[in-house]
Amino acid sequence: MTLAKFPALKALIFDVQGTATDFRGTLIDEAIRLGRGREGHFDWGSFVDDWRGLYRPALDEVLAGTRPWTSVDLIYREALDQLLTQKKLAFFSEGERAELNFGWQKIRPWPDVIEGLRRIKKNYKIATLSNADVSAVVNISKYGDLPWDAVFAAEMAGTFKPDPRTYGLALKYLGLLPSEVMMVACHKYDLKAAKDLGLHTAFVARPLEFGANGKVDTSFGQAFDINAHDFGDLAAQLGC
Amino acid sequence: MTLAKFPALKALIFDVQGTATDFRGTLIDEAIRLGRGREGHFDWGSFVDDWRGLYRPALDEVLAGTRPWTSVDLIYREALDQLLTQKKLAFFSEGERAELNFGWQKIRPWPDVIEGLRRIKKNYKIATLSNADVSAVVNISKYGDLPWDAVFAAEMAGTFKPDPRTYGLALKYLGLLPSEVMMVACHKYDLKAAKDLGLHTAFVARPLEFGANGKVDTSFGQAFDINAHDFGDLAAQLGC
Repeated sequence: MTLAKFPALKALIFDVQGTATDFRGTLIDEAIRLGRGREGHFDWGSFVDDWRGLYRPALDEVLAGTRPWTSVDLIYREALDQLLTQKKLAFFSEGERAELNFGWQKIRPWPDVIEGLRRIKKNYKIATLSNADVSAVVNISKYGDLPWDAVFAAEMAGTFKPDPRTYGLALKYLGLLPSEVMMVACHKYDLKAAKDLGLHTAFVARPLEFGANGKVDTSFGQAFDINAHDFGDLAAQLGC
Repeated sequence: MTLAKFPALKALIFDVQGTATDFRGTLIDEAIRLGRGREGHFDWGSFVDDWRGLYRPALDEVLAGTRPWTSVDLIYREALDQLLTQKKLAFFSEGERAELNFGWQKIRPWPDVIEGLRRIKKNYKIATLSNADVSAVVNISKYGDLPWDAVFAAEMAGTFKPDPRTYGLALKYLGLLPSEVMMVACHKYDLKAAKDLGLHTAFVARPLEFGANGKVDTSFGQAFDINAHDFGDLAAQLGC
């Protein structure tokens, strides 16, 4: 079945970190588990926020050409070491740091995601388009049982979103036109870049991306073809 | 569970055309459907064999550097037009030719494949490593309900198997070492190339790849870590 509003739509491509998965909750759990109380009453929520905060500037350096392409795994690891020193949590061993950093490859899907994806998958192709490394997205999807038809990542284009080559790669690998594909994300910069290339767009609000008190833009926007509260709502608005 | 024989094994990568799918049966059905009797008692089995026969030489031209990288969809289409002219079947319209050629993107899994993959997937990552275009592998997998964790194809490396870069790309995108990955194929050239790079290998016999009277090498080989009759046998030998 195809909804009249999107008669040409054949596939949806999804942001992963934040949109499909709760990285903050997962990393806090991992940090507490690996810290085993050695850090006292440390605020791991803020720590993960700071950690994630160092990620985007690193990608932007690559996009600006001031840094060569770098795996996101390495970006997270450098940021982790920097923060552990800064916060005087140097007792984490090399093995513990590696394990904590690998937490980014085990980030859990939000509760609505698997069921929503299964509904959408019946009518459309569904694929990732993530800034995380391909291997990380494969791990996240395997741990989380995410039923993608294909895993695509910016790494395959040697750059990061919002570089247009990233979306172009997904179109090429799907064999589809921009008008046949919808980008789904909780980050508006991602949707704007996709829209500029002629893709449909779906905004999904993730109010808890940065925790209960986190600052996050959840306002629906007229610029997007769909505004949804979660993946179940997205499926419903697609007629799935 | 990990079988003692392959303690390091974490993922299997699969050839698609021939190993996981019955392209000959599918394309014969498509040709008969689209021919609608206009071709009399034409031998579509031989036609599909001839069609497939033009595929490998075209890939080899790319590998030899005498032809730039070309989509496999185009290689099949050029071969189709050539054969239809040669066999005096020029009555096929442009639309019918496009539809017949698209048959390569709908090739059916062999009967043992889905169940075998589901068993293997419980213990290991499973991904494609196909010479077909990424978009074709996505379509084949969607039509056939093949439960891959990821779709990889030679196109992502800008070459074709058995170029080592193809297997290297799969290793990189899985984030794994050669000793952690097993190549599964019914074509020995594919397995030999993977083995040369240090991957494990599993030969799966497909006696009907070229029909009941087709010439095909189904002999088990000591050079391979596993020799299997089908994907169920492969799963069993892996302890899945």
